[in-house]
Amino acid sequence: METIDHVRLNEDGTKLVILDQTQLPNRMEYAELSTAEEMYDAIKKLRVRGAPCIGIFAGFAMFVLAQGIDLSTYGEFRDRFHELSAYLNSSRPTAVNLSWALRRMERVVEDQAQAPREELLRCLRAEAQAILEEDIAMCRAISEHGLSLLREGDGVLTHCNAGPIATSRYGTAIGPLILGAERGMKLRAFADETRPLLQGARLTSWELDRAGVDVTLICDNMASMVMKNGWVQFCFVGCDRVAANGDTANKIGTSGVAILAKHYGIPFYVLGPTSTIDLACPTGDDIRIELREPEEIKKMWYREPMAPESVKCFNPSFDVTDHRLIDGIITEKGICRAPYTESLAALFR
Amino acid sequence: METIDHVRLNEDGTKLVILDQTQLPNRMEYAELSTAEEMYDAIKKLRVRGAPCIGIFAGFAMFVLAQGIDLSTYGEFRDRFHELSAYLNSSRPTAVNLSWALRRMERVVEDQAQAPREELLRCLRAEAQAILEEDIAMCRAISEHGLSLLREGDGVLTHCNAGPIATSRYGTAIGPLILGAERGMKLRAFADETRPLLQGARLTSWELDRAGVDVTLICDNMASMVMKNGWVQFCFVGCDRVAANGDTANKIGTSGVAILAKHYGIPFYVLGPTSTIDLACPTGDDIRIELREPEEIKKMWYREPMAPESVKCFNPSFDVTDHRLIDGIITEKGICRAPYTESLAALFR
Repeated sequence: METIDHVRLNEDGTKLVILDQTQLPNRMEYAELSTAEEMYDAIKKLRVRGAPCIGIFAGFAMFVLAQGIDLSTYGEFRDRFHELSAYLNSSRPTAVNLSWALRRMERVVEDQAQAPREELLRCLRAEAQAILEEDIAMCRAISEHGLSLLREGDGVLTHCNAGPIATSRYGTAIGPLILGAERGMKLRAFADETRPLLQGARLTSWELDRAGVDVTLICDNMASMVMKNGWVQFCFVGCDRVAANGDTANKIGTSGVAILAKHYGIPFYVLGPTSTIDLACPTGDDIRIELREPEEIKKMWYREPMAPESVKCFNPSFDVTDHRLIDGIITEKGICRAPYTESLAALFR
Repeated sequence: METIDHVRLNEDGTKLVILDQTQLPNRMEYAELSTAEEMYDAIKKLRVRGAPCIGIFAGFAMFVLAQGIDLSTYGEFRDRFHELSAYLNSSRPTAVNLSWALRRMERVVEDQAQAPREELLRCLRAEAQAILEEDIAMCRAISEHGLSLLREGDGVLTHCNAGPIATSRYGTAIGPLILGAERGMKLRAFADETRPLLQGARLTSWELDRAGVDVTLICDNMASMVMKNGWVQFCFVGCDRVAANGDTANKIGTSGVAILAKHYGIPFYVLGPTSTIDLACPTGDDIRIELREPEEIKKMWYREPMAPESVKCFNPSFDVTDHRLIDGIITEKGICRAPYTESLAALFR
């Protein structure tokens, strides 16, 4: 059975074990979760993060919680199951994969109305496992397609974190690098630290280092010099939402990387599952950008504040990269090229 | 008499008082310095920083130290003066303004070989004051030329710190904003926080806020979105060295800002005194870039390290902005335009 280290069941399957991502890279601390409150809290406090990873977490979480529902009739069981599912869903209402995974688990309960309790639990566990395995297969396919572009010795610049712990295994944006390392290829990675939340420093550089990829951490503003020096042949980034015309929302700073890449003639690729492509969203202008608190810029992580209390901040979580700056969008089904309006739509036919 | 708050003499002129820049923006702490060791230390530990500011500091420092030289003959005085000057100069050997200011002070001692001690001290104080006043006049002239470009309501994006405390008053890159605010103009500033040393957050945002300029602090990777939103009409940055062809070395990240500005059609200007123009340096390729320690990226400021010990970093202090990305170079003598090989050379004829 395929399992992953950072979200898994304990030995007798009654608890959920997670690698606490808030403690990385300094401590590899695992937490055992058994109540709905602990699970809600783990998502809320980013102990578990990354859209695909939250989906996998939600599947196993509902299996664990289902075992604890001690009600006699199917109707009572189903109602309590939905209640718990709705509660978990409220922890991060904008996370698409969270509600998607919870709906899949709810559907199992609906479908097994006639089954004995033991059989129902078996089906729930199988569904959670299926969500995980589908993600592993998807990440591996994306990584294969990405790796097909790379040659021995190539350098790849990435931004933010779209690696194994944000997904199941391999990840999306850095999947090709990890798969390449597994096959003995020598590749070089440059990881933008990704202010203000530092996912590149805390997570991506840690993951690549552990996977044996030659990684160099830089501040976001050093990408221009790294490109000018000829050290990177590709930029690979993840995505939070891709519009029908190929405009891509991803972690703040991604659009800047794309503009620099265009200036220096370096191909820029977006990597992500087809589930992030939103054909109902015509262009990037239709994507609402979340604004976050100034404290993340001025205070978070630091021993003391780095800017006066009175100074205001602009702190968008994402930006939109114009499709004209993107050389290709790599999904589990292959590499889409411009014109994206056609190539993206073709994925869903 | 023109004085400044962040580098000045105490009331009876026997000590040097500085605003300790390492404590900003959290504390406005002043330090009284009277020994050469204390002064050396203040430069070394960046309690006083910014090339023009260090020059001003050095002038007053030598006046203070001269009062303490208790030797009977002129020859003994002169030798001791040179010794102290060489000692201060060794605190930051690459700081052009430091050695330049110390040489000016030494020349006064040479010129006043016949003067009584009291007259010699008077001349030293006058020379230190002249260095200060020349810098104030230079910054004001640069600010006036820069301000001539701005219209009511304009937004200006800046990178790193080239403000009052790095100079005497006004500063260079943000001088036009401060001068504009003094005259009641409504201007908007966007300050890149400027990783890894955060001069934009700690110093620029603090200075602009105090000067009454509407300032918004952003992470470096947010500049692209700020430009896309149409919030800035100009980019103003300082410079550490300008080559004969206009290629400009400035704080790491400056070249990225210039590339984004070109992409979005926003004029990009470099502001600095003619003393930073180095006609002996043909192009940016001839400027050696200082590389600094990984700890500045991974550990400095933070409560605990943000990346694994084993991950390497690339940490250049400066980058070079191609002259083709620069719309103008603003000095105290006016605005130079392309072709820079001609317009910069003309400044020195």
